[in-house]
Amino acid sequence: MNRKGILTVVSGPSGAGKGTICKELLKNNENIKLSVSATTRAPREGEKEGVNYYYKTHEEFKKMIEEGDLFEYAERYGNFYGTPKAAIMENLEKGQDVLLEIEMIGALNVKKMCPDSVLIFVLPPSLEELKRRLVGRGTETEEQIEKRFSMAYEEIQTLKEYDYFIINEDVETAAKDIESIIAAEKNKTERYKEAILKEFEEEYKKC
Amino acid sequence: MNRKGILTVVSGPSGAGKGTICKELLKNNENIKLSVSATTRAPREGEKEGVNYYYKTHEEFKKMIEEGDLFEYAERYGNFYGTPKAAIMENLEKGQDVLLEIEMIGALNVKKMCPDSVLIFVLPPSLEELKRRLVGRGTETEEQIEKRFSMAYEEIQTLKEYDYFIINEDVETAAKDIESIIAAEKNKTERYKEAILKEFEEEYKKC
Repeated sequence: MNRKGILTVVSGPSGAGKGTICKELLKNNENIKLSVSATTRAPREGEKEGVNYYYKTHEEFKKMIEEGDLFEYAERYGNFYGTPKAAIMENLEKGQDVLLEIEMIGALNVKKMCPDSVLIFVLPPSLEELKRRLVGRGTETEEQIEKRFSMAYEEIQTLKEYDYFIINEDVETAAKDIESIIAAEKNKTERYKEAILKEFEEEYKKC
Repeated sequence: MNRKGILTVVSGPSGAGKGTICKELLKNNENIKLSVSATTRAPREGEKEGVNYYYKTHEEFKKMIEEGDLFEYAERYGNFYGTPKAAIMENLEKGQDVLLEIEMIGALNVKKMCPDSVLIFVLPPSLEELKRRLVGRGTETEEQIEKRFSMAYEEIQTLKEYDYFIINEDVETAAKDIESIIAAEKNKTERYKEAILKEFEEEYKKC
């Protein structure tokens, strides 16, 4: 039976650790392909074009929206983030699993447009730990950190709209949890029942 | 967070291999406890009281039904099979995962009484292979085998009422698939969202 690929969307508040978990997951699963987002934000140190993001000017990004090239897009802190559509759909059709690591508004938009996608919410082990991580990152000002922290608590309330949650106590376990989720989704009756029953029916006719 | 145990119900047509898969699963997962069924059928060679089944007379079984001691029960080929209730509920409360390997009518009854349970349908890789296994088992007459085979095809149609399916190509993979399903269910938002949000709310109040 040909199983279509699973689109897994990993999201969660800033500082929950979704980026690190996704990196760990991809390291051990060559069969999962990371979808690269487009953004208008400036590259952070060490980030690479086409690897971390496709870096676009505001004008280029606007054109992508107008031409319907994006699966979803959202503005956050004055910058745009979006998910190029075509490559994902093509990969799923081929049976390739795709991973999306995106902001929370974007994640819910993907679910709306692609109900078959699997939404995973990454939670910090505690709010205290979340604050420690936001401070430790050292990429934001104190004011930005405070803003992100209170926003994070608000965002945790949207948990109910996600299919799964991961409590990020340690990265290895969190990545393994996502592996299990993808594996389980590949055995969901809802996804594949028509294909299975058709195959058995065809064999039965030949009996 | 305290997570309640998961009740996994493995079922499927005769010859699909559910018994062998469950044995493999239990071998590698000490945290999963097999629920032992009660039955009125005679023990097969090598089977042990309290390990494979609790062997009951028809009269004893009737008494269990009347006293509401069974989670579900069903008649099959003139014998009764049932699932003792109390031990399962007690284990789930303690956070213990429980595995049930039962006939298909029973499985659907458990789901009705316990909607949180996870129903897994074990499929043979093909109908041809199913027939081969029924013959190979050597415990039934030719007539019984024919009856089981045509019944198996009918039973496959009820697949849609199950949460997951497993195609039993090889036992190790099938057991691993069930492991992933149980792990994924432990990260389902639907199951634990109230507990999670309550925990974060309490921490936030203290901040």
